[in-house]
Amino acid sequence: MTRHRVRDAACRVLQRKKLMFVNRIRIRVEFGDCDPANIVFFANYFRWFDQCTSALFRAAGLPLDELFKSHGVIGIPLVEAHARFFIPSKYGDELFAESCVTEWKQTSFVISHKFLSKGELAIEGSETHVWAAAHPTRAHRMKSVPLPQEVIRKLSATNGRSRKTGVRKPRARRKA
Amino acid sequence: MTRHRVRDAACRVLQRKKLMFVNRIRIRVEFGDCDPANIVFFANYFRWFDQCTSALFRAAGLPLDELFKSHGVIGIPLVEAHARFFIPSKYGDELFAESCVTEWKQTSFVISHKFLSKGELAIEGSETHVWAAAHPTRAHRMKSVPLPQEVIRKLSATNGRSRKTGVRKPRARRKA
Amino acid sequence: MTRHRVRDAACRVLQRKKLMFVNRIRIRVEFGDCDPANIVFFANYFRWFDQCTSALFRAAGLPLDELFKSHGVIGIPLVEAHARFFIPSKYGDELFAESCVTEWKQTSFVISHKFLSKGELAIEGSETHVWAAAHPTRAHRMKSVPLPQEVIRKLSATNGRSRKTGVRKPRARRKA
Amino acid sequence: MTRHRVRDAACRVLQRKKLMFVNRIRIRVEFGDCDPANIVFFANYFRWFDQCTSALFRAAGLPLDELFKSHGVIGIPLVEAHARFFIPSKYGDELFAESCVTEWKQTSFVISHKFLSKGELAIEGSETHVWAAAHPTRAHRMKSVPLPQEVIRKLSATNGRSRKTGVRKPRARRKA
Repeated sequence: MTRHRVRDAACRVLQRKKLMFVNRIRIRVEFGDCDPANIVFFANYFRWFDQCTSALFRAAGLPLDELFKSHGVIGIPLVEAHARFFIPSKYGDELFAESCVTEWKQTSFVISHKFLSKGELAIEGSETHVWAAAHPTRAHRMKSVPLPQEVIRKLSATNGRSRKTGVRKPRARRKA
Repeated sequence: MTRHRVRDAACRVLQRKKLMFVNRIRIRVEFGDCDPANIVFFANYFRWFDQCTSALFRAAGLPLDELFKSHGVIGIPLVEAHARFFIPSKYGDELFAESCVTEWKQTSFVISHKFLSKGELAIEGSETHVWAAAHPTRAHRMKSVPLPQEVIRKLSATNGRSRKTGVRKPRARRKA
Repeated sequence: MTRHRVRDAACRVLQRKKLMFVNRIRIRVEFGDCDPANIVFFANYFRWFDQCTSALFRAAGLPLDELFKSHGVIGIPLVEAHARFFIPSKYGDELFAESCVTEWKQTSFVISHKFLSKGELAIEGSETHVWAAAHPTRAHRMKSVPLPQEVIRKLSATNGRSRKTGVRKPRARRKA
Repeated sequence: MTRHRVRDAACRVLQRKKLMFVNRIRIRVEFGDCDPANIVFFANYFRWFDQCTSALFRAAGLPLDELFKSHGVIGIPLVEAHARFFIPSKYGDELFAESCVTEWKQTSFVISHKFLSKGELAIEGSETHVWAAAHPTRAHRMKSVPLPQEVIRKLSATNGRSRKTGVRKPRARRKA
């Protein structure tokens, strides 16, 4: 598992250098999230990625439902998703998810998620979203547009140790 | 299991008497539908009830998405759901679901579902839906309205043995 | 909505009289929980009922995964579920769920759930579970058995205002 | 969309050259699969990937549940998943999924999925699974082991046009 610790440390280094806004949430694995192998059915991790992204925007002062109204954006459609599964989790386990934007492109951005279980990296994944406005000429279609500076600024600003969430830090982080 | 057979027979009697339109679909239990007890996680049955209701309307020539446009209805919100679980199903099992309207009220209706597994009644359930139009005076609200006669007629007409679905009849029905 | 308030008050009366152990959890409605009607897809409420039941047993000092090992029970299979939907909820809403056992039978029990949204009763539902042990003579089968007194006692004992969960009480309760 | 057609053609070329066993299933998008944006909630695609994988093994004469018993394998845990989303799908749409193994490694393999909607590539994704046996010395743990030749052979053999599934070929393929 040393490999995972190194990776996790790298993430924090990234955070310090690029001053990204990081949000953490706690996820409890429920009975219905697990499959006959007695571990989380993998599609649920992607459901949780979406929950993490939603929480990240909300924590940064950009709740998605309001954002859509205030910024002329009609959605942030997902164009790519990826996950690597290192440690399975089972019913009753607690996962600590940390999420931040790790890449800004012209009209899209990448959100990375790390799920820690008992201080070890259990899952890592990423989502690529497009910033989309209503299509200027075609009804019911959307068009990718440049990201507003306010959104980039709020999700790039460091928020230190993310005290707001009240999530106790998992063991691996304390050691660092 | 004799009890279940009797119940199932009663259902067919009901169908003959009231001449209800019955639709049947086949559901294969997938790995991700099952929980650590190695059986279908019960919330998935309600997901399938919705799928059955959708298929029932479509088979009766009333596909829900078009219906909303053509009949001034903005939805058929669910106000009650109920299920009884007799036989658990596991990964790889095939379920034969049969659904029909079993009660017409002024502005609502009840859809009943029976799920058969190897010819035995495994699950039975019901959903009560309201027929709802846009509220005449309040924006973004809905109001229950009387059901259109066309909808009642199409879902009440007998469709015999429902040949369209191509579902091979489960054992219990062959014996009848 | 007066009707719902009355019902909710009745629930608390029941709690006081029968001294049932009540647990409360907070549920945030996520984007992926909602359907094209922009409200919670109803099957998710049943998923949350299971989460509530799991939390109820855990809060009463009877975590289900340990219970199965320590009490010779191999599961608490669900035999019936029911829900009534009064107020729809949408992405971003917070629901306060309160759950307690409302009926003890010989080998089964009923858990009732109430979901409050902004102080109003949004959903109420119930689940009937059987207490099941391994079948004495047939492999891979289960048999309903009488509930252990410890389980009945712990889930019947009043826990007052459920301070543990730290859930702020919804408005309707404060008025009472 | 020309880009997608090219990609799809490339897939068929791959199939011819490497003689991979390809399975096709049809997926109907249900109401509950969609989110408030009125399109499939992305986590459901991963649920369907699992369904495709299950169907692929079954079609190749290697149903997973039996495989686990007969081949000493205790599971095929997922270690990586990836998807790219090109065209959104909505309630009522029909998707044609085609799946095959695209890479054999020592103790793992990659399954690729393509979802076609109206003849266009809507989604493509992949899953990397490990072939796992019970750990020789540690209880409740698993260990990756070399894939049985029978499994490789059956999933590598060409099956021509996959007539078994009865899925009518989407438009793009007819043109080819």
